[in-house]
This record gives sequence, C-alpha cells and structure tokens, in this order.
Amino acid sequence: MPKSSAKTLYTGRYLVLNERDDWEFVARHHPVAAIIAWTPNDELLLVEQYRKPIEKTTIEIPAGLIGDVDGSEQESMLDAAGRELEEETGWRAGSLKQGMSVPTSAGLSSEYVIFVWAEALVQVGPGGGDASEDITVHQIPRAEIDVWLENRYHQGYAIDPKIYAALYWSQHPPRSHGAT
Amino acid sequence: MPKSSAKTLYTGRYLVLNERDDWEFVARHHPVAAIIAWTPNDELLLVEQYRKPIEKTTIEIPAGLIGDVDGSEQESMLDAAGRELEEETGWRAGSLKQGMSVPTSAGLSSEYVIFVWAEALVQVGPGGGDASEDITVHQIPRAEIDVWLENRYHQGYAIDPKIYAALYWSQHPPRSHGAT
Repeated sequence: MPKSSAKTLYTGRYLVLNERDDWEFVARHHPVAAIIAWTPNDELLLVEQYRKPIEKTTIEIPAGLIGDVDGSEQESMLDAAGRELEEETGWRAGSLKQGMSVPTSAGLSSEYVIFVWAEALVQVGPGGGDASEDITVHQIPRAEIDVWLENRYHQGYAIDPKIYAALYWSQHPPRSHGAT
Repeated sequence: MPKSSAKTLYTGRYLVLNERDDWEFVARHHPVAAIIAWTPNDELLLVEQYRKPIEKTTIEIPAGLIGDVDGSEQESMLDAAGRELEEETGWRAGSLKQGMSVPTSAGLSSEYVIFVWAEALVQVGPGGGDASEDITVHQIPRAEIDVWLENRYHQGYAIDPKIYAALYWSQHPPRSHGAT
C-alpha cells in the first residue's frame, strides 16, 4: 500500500497527535526498550510504579524511552537499554541482545517497543529509577511468577501485558528476532 | 496516591489528548476486547490488516473497540467481543469468558485491553471485517505458530505482542482473571 504523509493536529510538549488518511493517532518517534532480565537465581526483574494515564500502580518489565535523554541521543539502543535496566533495578547486564520490535497499540499510536534480552546480570546498586521516577524493584522466582502476578492483579495493580510476552519467549526462545 | 483530574489539551474526532500532573497522555474511554480463539482443530485465529499509524500490515488476535457502535452502546462486553470475532473471522463462539484486563501502554494512554476467551467455535461465514475494514483471516496450528510468526516478522509484518500473551495463557491457564 502506498505510504502517505501524516498531518499534525496538535503538538504537545511530549506527544503529537497526527492524522493520516482520516485516521487519528499519536506519533511517537522514540521507541521504548523493554528488558527481559532473569537474575542468576532465575528470578524475573519487574518494576512497580504509579502511572498517571491510568491512575494505577503497574507491574512492568523494566523499560525506557530510547534517545530522549539530553546528551545521550547518539547512545546505541542496547546501551540505552542497559542504562535503563541499571537505573531502574540496580542490576547491570554483561550481555544485551535485541529481540522482537513490536507496536504497542497499532491502531492508536506509532509507538514501538523493542524487546531486549539482558544476560549475565550483576547487582551493582539499589535501583529505583532516576530523579523523576519512584520505582520499586521485584525479583520473582520463575516457579512463582504466575501466581504472584495474579495476586497483584486481584489486589488492583495493573499488569503490563509485555510481561507475558517475555514469559512466553523465555519458554520458547526465538531463533532470531533482531533483524527485520 | 490521591487521584487528580485531567486537563484536556486537544479534542480530535476520535482521540483526546489530556494532561494530568504535568504528564501528557491519550484518553481512551472505550476499552478494546481482544479475543483468544482456538478452532476445534487447535488453530489460533489471527487477523491481518493494514494499520495507518505504523504504516505496516499487522498480524493480531481479533479485537475491537467496545461500545463504539451506534445503537450498540448497551451491548455487554462479551456480546461485543463475540460480534467482533464473528465479523472479523467468520467464527462464532458458543462460549465467551472474560480474561485479564490490561493497559496497552500505561505511560502513553489510558487504553485498556480486555482479553476474552472464545470457546466452542463454529464457522458461520467468511469474516473479513465490517465495511470499513479489510481483514485477512489466518488459522495457524498450535505446533506451527512460533515459526509462522517469526517468518511473518522477518517478512516485514508487524506482530501484535498480545498474541504472545495469548499463547502464554493458553499454556498456563489463569485460575481466574475476570474480576479485579
């Protein structure tokens, strides 16, 4: 199908509302890196934080926008993912590799999430996020994670569905995802 | 944390850009129902359609906005999910039950997706969507689905990550998800 240019309807400080062929959507130029990180003890790293759009505390895999930090625009995607992981969780990855890149809500926005596999983890700090963030870190053993997430859900937390994609891929490792 | 009201920055025909406590986001009042549907032959129903925000053809599980059809505002969520499934895929569900309800991108929008399990499927038509949609239906056997999705991905299709959540839950059935 031929591509057509988008018309800008409104430019906010962070978000831009566009329209293409009569279809409104949010333009999102920076992708999000979402990190699948198992500790040496086979625990998945999860982060808990309050999210203003939904007015709920969420449980998510560590993630961050790529290329939005002043002075770090030229940082590689994997370096940025490693930095986000360390800031949010206090764990540093010895190895990072790119996984699948997917749209979060293809009818609503142009936002993409790039999954990143973090391996050879070493704990180097407490985590908790940068100055603008208030993050609680969780390390959940593989055997307990289904029940742990269900319990949080029933307690009223919002559960990021990317966690379940991460769990599926952890059981069914892709042959290769990095290239498109 | 105390809730605070959102300020509207821009109202489009379909989307509204809001701000709450200095955080911009897209307000989405209608949830999306996303349907996990295995045929009697153990094939997962997937739909293929072009998505303007990302300018790519996507592979997704069947899904639709709930409560956005004139005259159907009072339709129950499960009835709407069954209608969407039948419109998009041509398969009618004998039983529908609610699964987990999750935010698609909690930092970007207030959009929620309610997963719905469709069971006892019977094929009653060709599918393809309503007058505004152009949908191709796929029925992929469980044993082939990982490779099929990887191949589509490498061919340049966008893959909806909700598919992988659906696959995880299909292998790890939740005890109960409907209530929050």
